[in-house]
Amino acid sequence: MGRCIIASSSTFTLSRFSRKPTSILPSEIPRFSFSRSLTANSRPLKHEFHRTLPPAFSCGRGLCARAVLSDVSEEKQYFKVGAESTGSIPSDRLLDVIETAAKTGAQVIMDAVNKPRNVTYKGLTDLVTDTDKMSEAAILDVVKKNFQDHLILGEEGGIIGDSSSDYLWCIDPLDGTTNFAHCYPSFAVSIGVLYKGKPAAAAVVEFVGGPKCWNTRTFTAAAGKGAFCNGEKIHVSQTDKIERSLLVTGFGYEHDDPWATNMELFKQFTDVSRGVRRLGAAAVDMSHVALGIVEAYWEYRLKPWDMAAGVLIVEEAGGTVSCMDGGKFSVFDRSVLVSNGVLHSKLLERIGPATEKLKDKGIDFSLWYKPENYYTEL
Amino acid sequence: MGRCIIASSSTFTLSRFSRKPTSILPSEIPRFSFSRSLTANSRPLKHEFHRTLPPAFSCGRGLCARAVLSDVSEEKQYFKVGAESTGSIPSDRLLDVIETAAKTGAQVIMDAVNKPRNVTYKGLTDLVTDTDKMSEAAILDVVKKNFQDHLILGEEGGIIGDSSSDYLWCIDPLDGTTNFAHCYPSFAVSIGVLYKGKPAAAAVVEFVGGPKCWNTRTFTAAAGKGAFCNGEKIHVSQTDKIERSLLVTGFGYEHDDPWATNMELFKQFTDVSRGVRRLGAAAVDMSHVALGIVEAYWEYRLKPWDMAAGVLIVEEAGGTVSCMDGGKFSVFDRSVLVSNGVLHSKLLERIGPATEKLKDKGIDFSLWYKPENYYTEL
Repeated sequence: MGRCIIASSSTFTLSRFSRKPTSILPSEIPRFSFSRSLTANSRPLKHEFHRTLPPAFSCGRGLCARAVLSDVSEEKQYFKVGAESTGSIPSDRLLDVIETAAKTGAQVIMDAVNKPRNVTYKGLTDLVTDTDKMSEAAILDVVKKNFQDHLILGEEGGIIGDSSSDYLWCIDPLDGTTNFAHCYPSFAVSIGVLYKGKPAAAAVVEFVGGPKCWNTRTFTAAAGKGAFCNGEKIHVSQTDKIERSLLVTGFGYEHDDPWATNMELFKQFTDVSRGVRRLGAAAVDMSHVALGIVEAYWEYRLKPWDMAAGVLIVEEAGGTVSCMDGGKFSVFDRSVLVSNGVLHSKLLERIGPATEKLKDKGIDFSLWYKPENYYTEL
Repeated sequence: MGRCIIASSSTFTLSRFSRKPTSILPSEIPRFSFSRSLTANSRPLKHEFHRTLPPAFSCGRGLCARAVLSDVSEEKQYFKVGAESTGSIPSDRLLDVIETAAKTGAQVIMDAVNKPRNVTYKGLTDLVTDTDKMSEAAILDVVKKNFQDHLILGEEGGIIGDSSSDYLWCIDPLDGTTNFAHCYPSFAVSIGVLYKGKPAAAAVVEFVGGPKCWNTRTFTAAAGKGAFCNGEKIHVSQTDKIERSLLVTGFGYEHDDPWATNMELFKQFTDVSRGVRRLGAAAVDMSHVALGIVEAYWEYRLKPWDMAAGVLIVEEAGGTVSCMDGGKFSVFDRSVLVSNGVLHSKLLERIGPATEKLKDKGIDFSLWYKPENYYTEL
């Protein structure tokens, strides 16, 4: 398992609390590779593990762990989210198909961008347009033509394919539908393919500009192979002070306790940073962290199709990804914090405790939208 | 004085409260032209006026009035902000110079957009770059070459020129400097020229896209002549429901009571609309209202150079402009609400009382940045 080492002056504590801790299964330990990933500087580490049983699709964390480390100062570490392997399919092949698929969906959107929208509602303010559905259909065609036996999770179409596959395609055919409905940049096509539950390759086609000057920018990444924008290697920013950072966040459709907590975080960070932007498309915001134009992005309650591509692009651009409690992230988690890495721990000084409070209140942070029977190495 | 009539089911009340009302000077009444502007539908109207004495630059409202109107139902009215005349200079000539000036500044920015920034600080998070100053210098060259005797108020350079001129150029050579410093779209050049205190012509060159795909979009307007984007006429949206609206707001550098109030408004409108965007450049946000891609924008504590262009572009695109208490707006005011017009009164149902509370607390809403001795017909 990879790791990311970030300079910090405080003692390292990596925590992930399950609400119902039980005894740890020794067979699970190697999956976390604590012994390898947490022995930075060859210092002795102290571990604690807790486990909850993995339920099926859309409820329950497969494995929750708490690691308390002493004797490590000056550094904090966060787990890598990218897959260590792409299995039998070379990452170049995955990249080729994922970029083709994303650009095929983007062409559907570009054809529609100056035409009237046909908007329908999933909720009072949760929109869907014909273009979302047409983009997804076009993307599915590309994926299925190349990989008949892969499992696919699409925002509009749900789960299709073979759940015994190691590959899961997470497809958002139009991330930022509200912006699209208003012709307001930005929105995107976002596709991430997982291998055994971890992002292996990613593509985001971002729509920029708006009326009179629509354009696109394409982000791609493969695990261990770097992140690219329009074919050029990109890197997160080096900004190391919150007061010199530009941040971005999002607010979901459900106006629950996490929503209210994030309103408070928005206020706090607007107060102490150069500003918190609110643009309205998770894949775009994460790609902007990778591009180095903002330092961090966080949000509660995103779905796998919102995050699978963006988190890998950030990580491959040199950034750090975790849950909003600082714990190990998977695309089936209900919170995400991506940053330039340097600022991750400083951001968690506020975001972490706020998230812990939600957990203390009993807010559900178990995994969701995890296809039943899909095998993962999370 | 022009007016804007908006369908509404409630009784019309236009209010602007001064904190220290005194008796009205009869000589001031014609300046407000209530008898003309408020006799929509030829119905009898009832007025009340209050006045405070006009102090010099940066303090005190010249004239504050409260008009209470009965017998008018189904409609609310807001004052036009655009100049009724452009004096001895035809509006086409003003437009020609203002667009040339804005594009000259924009070229300076475009030349710098992919180069390293040299950032200095006006405050902890209030930035300025060399590019701000170079853009302003380039703009001043154009204005001074064409109109030697006009008064100029630049964000970076302050007041220069002849204060006996009827024309005041309000220049923001780089609106959204924080975004520019981070290569984060959007930012803009914003120039508005006032005639006797009211916007006569405006140009905003918006930078869109960001790294790998920078582009610009130019908004222009002249009072009474419509608003244009890249030469094509534009119009605000027709959206008439808050729950179907996309909104945008801003938060200034001073984290005072109005800042906290707007945090609360941000939360409330995020709760009831399709979303509130936070992009970081007032001229851009207002131009987006004019373009019809968002329904409204508001902010406390903007300066004349932030607003002079944007308010005219919105109004000429068919939108409505007022202060955040619903009162008559001038570019020297400390709050602004621009909207597609249809939603103006509905937005004020929340924004108005919140602003009145600030006034009740004694927060200063007097005019500011009004050049001493500059004659206005506000």
